[in-house]
Amino acid sequence: MWSFLKRAIVGNPIPTEQAHHERLSKRIALAVFSSDALSSTAYATEEILRVLAVAVVFGQGHAFTYVIPISVGISILLAVVGMSYRQTIYAYPSGGGAYIVAKENLGTMPGLVAAASLLVDYVLTVSVSVAAGVAAITSAAQGTSFAWVSNHSVAMCLVLIVFIALANLRGVKESGLLFSIPTYAFIFSFVGMIVWGLGRYLMFGVTPTPPLEPAIAEGYHPGPLTLMLFLGAFSNGCTALTGIEAISNGIPAFRKPESRNAATTLVWMSITLIGLFLGVSVLAYFYKVVPSEAETVTSQIARQIFSGPMQWFFFFLQAATAAILVLAANTSFADFPRLTSLLARDRFLPRQFANQGDRLVFSNGVVVLAVLSSLLLVMFKGDTHRLIPLYAVGVFVSFTLSQAGMVLHWLRERDQSRVHTAAEATKRERKEKSKDVDTGRLIGDFTEISGWKTSLMINALGAIACAVVLVVFVITKFVHGAWVVCVLIPVIVIMFRGVRRHYDNVADQLVITWKPKLKQRKHTVIVPISGIHNGVIPALEYARSLSKDFKDARAVYISIDPAATAQVKKEWETYADFMPLVILDSPYRSLLKPLMDYIDEVSNENEDTFVTVVLPEFVPARWWHNFLHNQSAILIKAALLFRRGVISVSVPYHLTH
Amino acid sequence: MWSFLKRAIVGNPIPTEQAHHERLSKRIALAVFSSDALSSTAYATEEILRVLAVAVVFGQGHAFTYVIPISVGISILLAVVGMSYRQTIYAYPSGGGAYIVAKENLGTMPGLVAAASLLVDYVLTVSVSVAAGVAAITSAAQGTSFAWVSNHSVAMCLVLIVFIALANLRGVKESGLLFSIPTYAFIFSFVGMIVWGLGRYLMFGVTPTPPLEPAIAEGYHPGPLTLMLFLGAFSNGCTALTGIEAISNGIPAFRKPESRNAATTLVWMSITLIGLFLGVSVLAYFYKVVPSEAETVTSQIARQIFSGPMQWFFFFLQAATAAILVLAANTSFADFPRLTSLLARDRFLPRQFANQGDRLVFSNGVVVLAVLSSLLLVMFKGDTHRLIPLYAVGVFVSFTLSQAGMVLHWLRERDQSRVHTAAEATKRERKEKSKDVDTGRLIGDFTEISGWKTSLMINALGAIACAVVLVVFVITKFVHGAWVVCVLIPVIVIMFRGVRRHYDNVADQLVITWKPKLKQRKHTVIVPISGIHNGVIPALEYARSLSKDFKDARAVYISIDPAATAQVKKEWETYADFMPLVILDSPYRSLLKPLMDYIDEVSNENEDTFVTVVLPEFVPARWWHNFLHNQSAILIKAALLFRRGVISVSVPYHLTH
Repeated sequence: MWSFLKRAIVGNPIPTEQAHHERLSKRIALAVFSSDALSSTAYATEEILRVLAVAVVFGQGHAFTYVIPISVGISILLAVVGMSYRQTIYAYPSGGGAYIVAKENLGTMPGLVAAASLLVDYVLTVSVSVAAGVAAITSAAQGTSFAWVSNHSVAMCLVLIVFIALANLRGVKESGLLFSIPTYAFIFSFVGMIVWGLGRYLMFGVTPTPPLEPAIAEGYHPGPLTLMLFLGAFSNGCTALTGIEAISNGIPAFRKPESRNAATTLVWMSITLIGLFLGVSVLAYFYKVVPSEAETVTSQIARQIFSGPMQWFFFFLQAATAAILVLAANTSFADFPRLTSLLARDRFLPRQFANQGDRLVFSNGVVVLAVLSSLLLVMFKGDTHRLIPLYAVGVFVSFTLSQAGMVLHWLRERDQSRVHTAAEATKRERKEKSKDVDTGRLIGDFTEISGWKTSLMINALGAIACAVVLVVFVITKFVHGAWVVCVLIPVIVIMFRGVRRHYDNVADQLVITWKPKLKQRKHTVIVPISGIHNGVIPALEYARSLSKDFKDARAVYISIDPAATAQVKKEWETYADFMPLVILDSPYRSLLKPLMDYIDEVSNENEDTFVTVVLPEFVPARWWHNFLHNQSAILIKAALLFRRGVISVSVPYHLTH
Repeated sequence: MWSFLKRAIVGNPIPTEQAHHERLSKRIALAVFSSDALSSTAYATEEILRVLAVAVVFGQGHAFTYVIPISVGISILLAVVGMSYRQTIYAYPSGGGAYIVAKENLGTMPGLVAAASLLVDYVLTVSVSVAAGVAAITSAAQGTSFAWVSNHSVAMCLVLIVFIALANLRGVKESGLLFSIPTYAFIFSFVGMIVWGLGRYLMFGVTPTPPLEPAIAEGYHPGPLTLMLFLGAFSNGCTALTGIEAISNGIPAFRKPESRNAATTLVWMSITLIGLFLGVSVLAYFYKVVPSEAETVTSQIARQIFSGPMQWFFFFLQAATAAILVLAANTSFADFPRLTSLLARDRFLPRQFANQGDRLVFSNGVVVLAVLSSLLLVMFKGDTHRLIPLYAVGVFVSFTLSQAGMVLHWLRERDQSRVHTAAEATKRERKEKSKDVDTGRLIGDFTEISGWKTSLMINALGAIACAVVLVVFVITKFVHGAWVVCVLIPVIVIMFRGVRRHYDNVADQLVITWKPKLKQRKHTVIVPISGIHNGVIPALEYARSLSKDFKDARAVYISIDPAATAQVKKEWETYADFMPLVILDSPYRSLLKPLMDYIDEVSNENEDTFVTVVLPEFVPARWWHNFLHNQSAILIKAALLFRRGVISVSVPYHLTH
């Protein structure tokens, strides 16, 4: 039954040799890996406006104009980080996530810090994206007869998480097909909105509306536009960058040649991202949109632009936004299990995370991510804005470590090339030239040609930019929640090291260094019985076969009720006199205590023999029948596990009905 | 750690031979067994008034005067039922609960119906009593600065249930000492209130207060005083009878001579109960008290009587009321586990209920009762009045069956005495006379002297009275919740019979009818391994010792990753070449499937040998380390339990840190 259900939902098992078929084309990869990055354009502008609103409410009506320089600044940062990650893709074709890059180049600790911040980030991505997706739906419902849906936003979030988790348990390729349509619908609708909106503005201008009191970012109070506030707005807008690293983590999922395809996809994605983000910010500025609790900024813009007969496009855009935001969570569902499996393989996480399920998916990672993000959504009652400050700290920690690692990578590359013999250098150059021919067609591809110097400079620029943003972020957002992440990351790192220490300990204990000398040992066999019945006969038979002269096998009966004991003694003589019966008194009516004492006694007496406890075990015909039996066999087995040198044997007796 | 905590809370184990020391004196037994019956006087009068209020609100102001005839009627019923149960105590000195009496005299089905209604009743007693006790506290708090406690009544109820359950897990005698003071404080304070209240009324009369709108019983609407309403009020008042059977269930807990002590205690209890109940009803009538949601009726009476300098007595009375009501729940904690253990011994309930814990208490019954009554309180949000109709149906079902059973008991007694020879009759008479001397001192003791005829008449009267009340109850209360119990009782009876059927089936399969012929069989041994390390060496050693020529022992390795498999093969040749190694491919990366297929294959090939699977099992040094290992041994063991004729062996390997 359960098995059938699992097959229906998750699909049939896939054999290991089909692993390489589960690869993504560039077009599908763009949908799978860029939904996170692209979808953030749906809320990044709003997060900037919410901080600027602090000054607007204070009375400085011009503050909203700063959305334009801030957005341009973020776009430049985005281009730098994107280029920087492009270097990583070529240097780490097997997947250059921040964890791997930082660990290999900076050492284990920085690697673990990067990994911890990424894990936190993935969980937050799922929560924030799903919550924002639901906000798009409830925004569209404003003013219609479906406005009541906003009362059920947490429930909607949880249903969506379950849906995405199931899709991911089926496997990555099917997810790709499933998720392409929303991503392209989102790009199409946002491009449509920007083009139509700009055209409309240039031709007709905007009909002025009465000014609303804007909603202020969580934790702020009205005040003047200080540098701190300006930087806070910039920090908030940096959520637009989240997800840009997704491609560099997922290179092995691309079709061959993986690196080139991944790099091309990254360039496409960065250009799209900058275009959409700047477009939305400019529209927000032109159409004088003010952040509000009831409706998102993009929803307000689209509602103004697509009024009258074009209103269907507004609903289409909101649907596409909701869809891509919900699917942005999917990026994390692709990357979280991959990272946990890497960590598990390096023994920093329980090895269960490294087990591939029968659909070639790291199922445990998928399930853990779904549970954690659901908990977070319930705790924060589905409120996106309160999660944003927690979110971007982890992102920029991993960005900074990853770029810094790349800088050291190129320095090492340089050192290696210096010690190369002339012949090797020539070979390497020839190889690089052949790559050059392959990759020259790509837009802006100059890394492989120009060698380590350019790469180093690009990555250094990226690292410095990210480090500066990280410092700004921590300073401006610490009291607004960033401190949680600052505490959480060290805790997770300590946990990683604890797990690793345990595995190292175990490995030390288990390693065989010389051929073991096996001793020939005798058996002493104990059969605890609850009475004389058919259920114990197979156990007695097995026990007898273990010890040839039967002197070393004995049945043990715990006496609680004297009348029952006399009965057992009598029946034993009639039916089972082939083995001695030991009767143990139990003054406190416990089964376990006298039996364990006896077993300890026997095993102390016989040092060089195996003490084997043969347990007759009832197997009922129906699972719920288990509640009707005492389950003493399970208790005894559990207690025996902690006795050194005592071996427990289960001899099942199957009830037929 | 856990063991220490258990000892600190529950106490040290008590050996079986001390069982007979755990007996109660009459004075303590009255406290333990009558708290349920006596405590109902705290709310029985109010339940009558709440139904009469239906007519008062309708406009018939005289309706409240009917509280007097109704209370007198209930007192007569109470005397009849009390006398009837006195017969039972002598006829069933080892404990004559409704289950035993009905089963022995009427047959199994009536016995099970009685048992089911008692179980339902015990759970409801705990919920109703604890809720009413908390109502006494919140009533006393009205008008003080502690009025806020009424917002936390459900939490208070749950804390009290946990407290009572723990007291009962310690054992019955210590509970008795603990619970005597509140019962006697309650009797003292209620007698004080009745005497003082009557005196005050006769001397000073009552200062008239403005009439309040009375609270109406749950489920009623204002209407005239019909016969149906009158009977409804009578039915509600019959909650005063609940708990009267407690002594007859608990005779074995009395000191010797058990029956006589129990009978004396029952007479004391009945007299006290009638006195207190009538007293409260008369006071309610004299002081013109009106039921209200904010304060209980007894609290209102006591507040009027003990005003001014005597106010401390009001608080003392409320405290005693709360205490006895909470402890009334304790009667159920004495009887529920006793009844479930009887049912378990008769195989109508899982045998776990028949296990006496190390404090000579049927611990499982205590825990189950605590859980069920807590659930009920949470479901009904601690509202007593809604539970009362559910409550009394079960009580009267068991009363009726028990008394009817006694009628048949005496008829059978008569038939037996007729076939006695003359000599036996003389002996019996002499014996009865000697008893006569013993018991003649008891108030109203005439049963033993007058023989079966009087007894039969008393029990017949009791049975008819209870049957009539039951019919009235079901008719007047069916729509108000009694239907739930009418559905629940048959469901529980069906469950009883299902459990019994299972045990009968098992017994049929297990019974040995001839001496088993043991075959001498060979061993085929399989050792599943995850690699070559110290953890598998003990298992290999054990497996080798099972099969002397080693041909029939083999290690099995499941190949998922070809590189790892090659490594294992190499290491096997170096370290463990004393046994053949079988490598099984697993195209879907499952450990279990290929292993089980192989085991099935081997066990089909070798029909007359034991197929033994030896499992190397890691035992980590700390329990939480278990989360860091794959636990495949547990999965394999669970799967093997369902293979016929396959035996699983656990060879533990203990990690030291």
